[in-house]
Amino acid sequence: MKRLSILGSTGSIGRQTLEVVRAFPERFRVWGLAAGENAPLLGQQIDEFRPALVSLVRGHLPGGDYRTCTAEEMAAHPETDLVVIATSGRAGLGPTLAAIQAGKDIALANKEVLVMAGAVVTALAREHNVEIRPIDSEHSALWQCLRGEDRATVKRLIITASGGPFRHHTTQEMAQITPEAALRHPTWQMGKKVTIDSATLMNKGMEIIEAHWLFGIPYQDIEVVVHPQSLIHSMVEFADGSIKAQLSPPDMKLPIQYALAYPERWPNSELPLVDWTQRLDLNFEAPDLSRFPCLRLAREAGMRGGTYPAALCAADEVAVDRFLKRDIGFLDISRLVEDALEAHRGSPQPTLDDILAADAWARDYAANWKPK
Amino acid sequence: MKRLSILGSTGSIGRQTLEVVRAFPERFRVWGLAAGENAPLLGQQIDEFRPALVSLVRGHLPGGDYRTCTAEEMAAHPETDLVVIATSGRAGLGPTLAAIQAGKDIALANKEVLVMAGAVVTALAREHNVEIRPIDSEHSALWQCLRGEDRATVKRLIITASGGPFRHHTTQEMAQITPEAALRHPTWQMGKKVTIDSATLMNKGMEIIEAHWLFGIPYQDIEVVVHPQSLIHSMVEFADGSIKAQLSPPDMKLPIQYALAYPERWPNSELPLVDWTQRLDLNFEAPDLSRFPCLRLAREAGMRGGTYPAALCAADEVAVDRFLKRDIGFLDISRLVEDALEAHRGSPQPTLDDILAADAWARDYAANWKPK
Repeated sequence: MKRLSILGSTGSIGRQTLEVVRAFPERFRVWGLAAGENAPLLGQQIDEFRPALVSLVRGHLPGGDYRTCTAEEMAAHPETDLVVIATSGRAGLGPTLAAIQAGKDIALANKEVLVMAGAVVTALAREHNVEIRPIDSEHSALWQCLRGEDRATVKRLIITASGGPFRHHTTQEMAQITPEAALRHPTWQMGKKVTIDSATLMNKGMEIIEAHWLFGIPYQDIEVVVHPQSLIHSMVEFADGSIKAQLSPPDMKLPIQYALAYPERWPNSELPLVDWTQRLDLNFEAPDLSRFPCLRLAREAGMRGGTYPAALCAADEVAVDRFLKRDIGFLDISRLVEDALEAHRGSPQPTLDDILAADAWARDYAANWKPK
Repeated sequence: MKRLSILGSTGSIGRQTLEVVRAFPERFRVWGLAAGENAPLLGQQIDEFRPALVSLVRGHLPGGDYRTCTAEEMAAHPETDLVVIATSGRAGLGPTLAAIQAGKDIALANKEVLVMAGAVVTALAREHNVEIRPIDSEHSALWQCLRGEDRATVKRLIITASGGPFRHHTTQEMAQITPEAALRHPTWQMGKKVTIDSATLMNKGMEIIEAHWLFGIPYQDIEVVVHPQSLIHSMVEFADGSIKAQLSPPDMKLPIQYALAYPERWPNSELPLVDWTQRLDLNFEAPDLSRFPCLRLAREAGMRGGTYPAALCAADEVAVDRFLKRDIGFLDISRLVEDALEAHRGSPQPTLDDILAADAWARDYAANWKPK
């Protein structure tokens, strides 16, 4: 019986994590549930899963047989075996570091944690002998492909990208994209921020940075390939030219379950299967960096290192927010981020405080940025 | 330095094995070379690789600093580390068993060894703690996908098939197929027998039987999917629905090198790479068992077990030979094999002698079979 604490339990990944937990009642005990503001849903989850610890940033909960605490306390609690970081934005950073310092293994869905502070987080994880298990389809795929292989024999990571809904748009058409159009992702159901990031390919750019930190592979050996069907979730090419790929129908419950069950694999009838009796066509093409500059910007920020990825993250978050509010256009997202990186004065070996300062600086810069 | 004995060194796989050896002169010493009849090529190989042992079934060799012996003696020789079985037909059976009895690891390209005598060979290998490393693209792919995974979590093996040159032919058109047309394989350069077996899908059927014995997976959990580009060489589906696939440009040198280098992976600039900067389309469809009955016949023979797969192999070998001599038509190959299996009186727990007797019986039956 594994005791789980789920941070961000009312979000998309948090809810799907609880679906996986529900399918294996004999294997998991929900030890802690933490949410931001969704008190009604957290209340329902408390009723169903009876956690020992509960954390809510804003809102009011009915009483019950639980103790309240901060997300950091929950992440580091001695009776937690595995901490699921299903928060988003910089919210996951503190609890992740707390969990690592307490020696807890982590299932990490919060992209910004590694993008903003990959060096700090992975150094601390090595120091405390903590395993960071990725929860997203691409890094889970890479992790699965690396299983049983010597990492010294990795030649390239090949991250697949659906290409988003605007794969075939001209730059002119892209200037007219509305929030409504950008929120319709062709293959994945996700939150708003990540859906827009998928449309700009910023999401894929951040995944390059995450992959760099998770697997210790140099940036020049991490490629992105557009694969519209989102069936192959990523690939690893080895020294001998052999490539391993991981495939499954697009459903986050698989990477979640893999991270929770690792190193085991459990049958789960709720997970969809690929149907090989039907004709299937898988296409691959190189991404167009001129129409999707965010991919280039993220890679460059990763290679510059230091506080640049944190500035990228923060500038992008504000830019996406301003786009959703119709304050700036779709193409302005990358322009804003590019200008922010240009203006940023990064520190090369940042502490966590430096990273948070870069984050604050970039948010401020992005909020005041004006389209030309 | 690994000492290799290569049985069938003048055949297609044997020559490519020596190409791999040539790329890693510091890693391998060619200890033995065995061939059937191609004395001139074997002579050249002796000049280049200076083996200690040489075996030639028929023909005359110039003298040199080597000792001659039988293929069985070579396979079991105490100074051999790894035996490459690159022979074809039942010729590989005796040397394989001799190598296993001597405790030598085996790199196996000779399909018929496991198809004819899978139960005997794998039981002996378990007894002597010998590893059978597959050398063909499909089983190498399965083996690579299984690396680091618990075999108890395998749900299905998915073997890919190019579908051969007649994938879209009607049954009527198939009746008219000439040996010349059947020998033009769309993606692989191979010997005649295996090229015709690829066109009838008998080759794929035999691979089901091989996979069953190599990986201990029940027949009902081994599927075949047509994938004309031959880039994904096979896949494994696990209990959680996750699928791992192995990809590489069609080139036998990769599975050969993987089998020789295992568990290592070595860079080799002669091995081709997938070019992800080019647009790539991968298609998959279910095989049509009504137009390609050999696939069904092989699976049925495997499931009946005992001497049935040996009878299938032998009948098919004679049928292909008769087809190449224009003695019977393309569609007669499966008819002959089906009639042979129908007429065969198999023994359920056969000894090697029973298997060889079934082989002889089926050859005789096939030689005398007349088209209706």
